[in-house]
Amino acid sequence: MSARENIPYDELETGQSASFQRSIGTREIALFAAATGDLNPVHLDPGFAASTPFGEPIAHGMLTGGLVSAALATVLPGPGTIYLGQNLRFRLPVKPGDTITVTLTVTEKRDRRRWVRLNCEAHNQDGKLVANGEAEVQAPAEKMTVDLPPEPAVSLC
Amino acid sequence: MSARENIPYDELETGQSASFQRSIGTREIALFAAATGDLNPVHLDPGFAASTPFGEPIAHGMLTGGLVSAALATVLPGPGTIYLGQNLRFRLPVKPGDTITVTLTVTEKRDRRRWVRLNCEAHNQDGKLVANGEAEVQAPAEKMTVDLPPEPAVSLC
Repeated sequence: MSARENIPYDELETGQSASFQRSIGTREIALFAAATGDLNPVHLDPGFAASTPFGEPIAHGMLTGGLVSAALATVLPGPGTIYLGQNLRFRLPVKPGDTITVTLTVTEKRDRRRWVRLNCEAHNQDGKLVANGEAEVQAPAEKMTVDLPPEPAVSLC
Repeated sequence: MSARENIPYDELETGQSASFQRSIGTREIALFAAATGDLNPVHLDPGFAASTPFGEPIAHGMLTGGLVSAALATVLPGPGTIYLGQNLRFRLPVKPGDTITVTLTVTEKRDRRRWVRLNCEAHNQDGKLVANGEAEVQAPAEKMTVDLPPEPAVSLC
């Protein structure tokens, strides 16, 4: 397990920023498809993808949404955060082999129910913006350090 | 493989509606965590979840986002759709064992770039709204029938 300290509502400041990085490969795309049932062949079938404007398989846009969720849940504000809402605009395709960096920035705080808005940007390894939007969360009330569970061990057959 | 016919831009009408259903269990939650790296213990660690207001593990909100993506990609408009943007509000927790029905309704069409807006609602098996929002897509230009790939075979270790 990996211990992770959160940033409770009282310690969050407008302008505060943090990032989360993850590489996306055919494995992550297959796992996302198996989790959600999104069997869009543009993500899973190289032959079909070759017939599209993308030319090759691309990741599900909502997989990048999952990276934004991971960033909020594990980094800023971190454990204890309750996810209230998200908007996202998909700007460029994410391809297997890309490394995506999600950067979160606190843009607004309201004491009622510890409501926080964060700007969210996802860039690839070339610095290109692949998706962006805004998250709304309820920040944790208390400072805490939580052991993150290990990544579930799965094998693709 | 399962053959799926899309609904191209010219055949889409405001008010047109379709739905996609999927059951969410601990398996889907673990696969989503393994795909995205979102290791939030409220989803994966029953002991931690028992200490939260939810009392038991809940699904990642963005997993419901993945079901919306699946609905757009496989049902309405279906294969050939390009996902441009999404907003989502998470209303109620989704728990292992819940069956979620995503209902999409076309609310707006604009000929330029075959732009379509759809209302998205996700209900659980008790008819309660767990998430809702709006999607923006580029609808397919041409009618086509596509073989959806099989769901990737994965095993949890």
